[in-house]
Amino acid sequence: MNEVQTLTYPIEKLKSFSSSVFQYFGVDKADADLASDVLAAADLRDISSHGVARLHTYFDMFELGRINPKPKVSVVRETPSTATVDGDNGLGLVVGPKANRIAMDKALASGSGWVSVRHTNHFGIAGYYVLQALKHDLIGWAMTNSTKLVAPLWGGERRLGTNPIAIAFPALKERPIVIDMATTAAAYGKVEMARRKGEQLPEGWAIDAQGQPTTDPNQMVQGGALLPLGSTRERGGHKGYCLATMVDVLSCVLSGANWGPFAPPFALRQEIPERSVGKGIGHFFGALRIDGFIDADEFKRQIDDYVQTMRATKPAPGTDGPLVPGDPEADAEAIRRVVGIPLILPVVEELRDISRKTKIAFD
Amino acid sequence: MNEVQTLTYPIEKLKSFSSSVFQYFGVDKADADLASDVLAAADLRDISSHGVARLHTYFDMFELGRINPKPKVSVVRETPSTATVDGDNGLGLVVGPKANRIAMDKALASGSGWVSVRHTNHFGIAGYYVLQALKHDLIGWAMTNSTKLVAPLWGGERRLGTNPIAIAFPALKERPIVIDMATTAAAYGKVEMARRKGEQLPEGWAIDAQGQPTTDPNQMVQGGALLPLGSTRERGGHKGYCLATMVDVLSCVLSGANWGPFAPPFALRQEIPERSVGKGIGHFFGALRIDGFIDADEFKRQIDDYVQTMRATKPAPGTDGPLVPGDPEADAEAIRRVVGIPLILPVVEELRDISRKTKIAFD
Repeated sequence: MNEVQTLTYPIEKLKSFSSSVFQYFGVDKADADLASDVLAAADLRDISSHGVARLHTYFDMFELGRINPKPKVSVVRETPSTATVDGDNGLGLVVGPKANRIAMDKALASGSGWVSVRHTNHFGIAGYYVLQALKHDLIGWAMTNSTKLVAPLWGGERRLGTNPIAIAFPALKERPIVIDMATTAAAYGKVEMARRKGEQLPEGWAIDAQGQPTTDPNQMVQGGALLPLGSTRERGGHKGYCLATMVDVLSCVLSGANWGPFAPPFALRQEIPERSVGKGIGHFFGALRIDGFIDADEFKRQIDDYVQTMRATKPAPGTDGPLVPGDPEADAEAIRRVVGIPLILPVVEELRDISRKTKIAFD
Repeated sequence: MNEVQTLTYPIEKLKSFSSSVFQYFGVDKADADLASDVLAAADLRDISSHGVARLHTYFDMFELGRINPKPKVSVVRETPSTATVDGDNGLGLVVGPKANRIAMDKALASGSGWVSVRHTNHFGIAGYYVLQALKHDLIGWAMTNSTKLVAPLWGGERRLGTNPIAIAFPALKERPIVIDMATTAAAYGKVEMARRKGEQLPEGWAIDAQGQPTTDPNQMVQGGALLPLGSTRERGGHKGYCLATMVDVLSCVLSGANWGPFAPPFALRQEIPERSVGKGIGHFFGALRIDGFIDADEFKRQIDDYVQTMRATKPAPGTDGPLVPGDPEADAEAIRRVVGIPLILPVVEELRDISRKTKIAFD
């Protein structure tokens, strides 16, 4: 096993660099700042694969003219509590927050708001969106499809994205409950990390190009696939596949985006799908007004109780007992706001490469 | 392994018997028929643990006066697209359909409808509710909490119910996509069946009373717990725990029902919770108007394509390839409508016992 070296940067420096890079390609300052905020949320919450580690991919896409820097994000159909939004091929990090805002505004006016989005691309971490909803005493939901990487149960090839689901609930004195989970057994970033370190994968994470179970990260990366949450039929792999399907339909079929194996690739090295069934990828945002159901403070008091009750669970032997969803991310954020964001050297090199090409200063 | 003997009954006979039993306790005929329909849906779809196999438990609860046969199901708070419903301690099989109807009506009027329900009890299969929504070109959602049976990841005791999630999407020519899944690695019914047959459980399903992993079904049943979907930290057990939490909060904290370990027991042999934090258990229903987002026929055509695309996936070695969510249940229903419902002898004996006590004829 090789040790992974890192360099540490203050979050403000990373935000400012990201925003300048987006502006370099013609994105308005307000939108560029918004997009940088979304990336920063990932780095702060230690979902590092979705932070500035992805900036070079956005950079490549802009350079190739594959992202519209000045999109007209528009509502193409709506009811008092639903809307379909066309992202006009803008940056997902800009389209996402704008569509989420529409869901929140509808919730404030009509009790709930549900927005399906087409013609967009990678929107960062799903958790960012549900944290925005918390600020308005709304229960926020966020989902998105992504480029195919996952086999359906009993499938021998990639057909679905990692299709995450996020939802958050505010507390009064405790930290909020924040759920943000891919619908796979394990994140692709963990496979990449194992590959970098020369380690084997646990069973249940992946299949190889022949559709056979594998613990070799190279076999997964080279034409294999991730397995859905539950991994096998015996342990509920059909349920992870069901969840991925749910996300796919709500984000894409409902909006007119490309679902399943037809999601366009985001990274340059990925193959182009055999056909197109819609525009771009899709997201799905929801917002529920808490006081549409119950007094918001009463709800939050109950969440405090809920959190304390779960923490008081008898621990399984050899563990410190259950966490509350969002604990690891909130802990990471508390530390990283103070000490900065550790970036592995390959990511630092990518940012330096962007700096050289754009003449925007970086360290 | 012992072979399990069954007797087979036409569904209409089981429905008529169930309805008569509910009416025996003072439930109106219309409500009794509705409740019997929900039970029948479980038996038809081969989710047999939730069909007439549970009638004796409802019978016991009525006999003890623990269910209100003539509930006033009321809306206690609402907005155009949300409502909180109090089930007045009625039969969950009656409260559920009425609350689901409110969600559907709100969706037809405002684009979406979201209803959280308190003061209710076991509502049958979640899949029943989302199938109702399909009839109105709505995307239906249904969730419920239930008596504690599941450990949170890293917990050594029962703290959560099996908390199922259902959602369905209509197709044009293909069968609909119908998702109905507990948020556990495996259903409790499968543990019961293994116990009856004297078989071991697969790894990843359960822990014993000390919180240690076990493959002995007796150890799970006698004070142990089921594990959430994903089973272990390595394979994403925190995600199953997150999903169970989501269902719990939407169904109970939002409505004012008893969440987590405080859900009241439904079966007589289960322990009474240490405290009460609300009324009864809780459900959560949602409905989204498809044409609030996209032309409904266009949506259904895409679902046809989706279903055909998933079926065309390269099969994993040794399998026939992926199913589409809802396939096993729809296959079972097609057969069972014709040949009848096979009931294991212990269930037949329970129905005969009800027949003796109520003088309602059964076989």
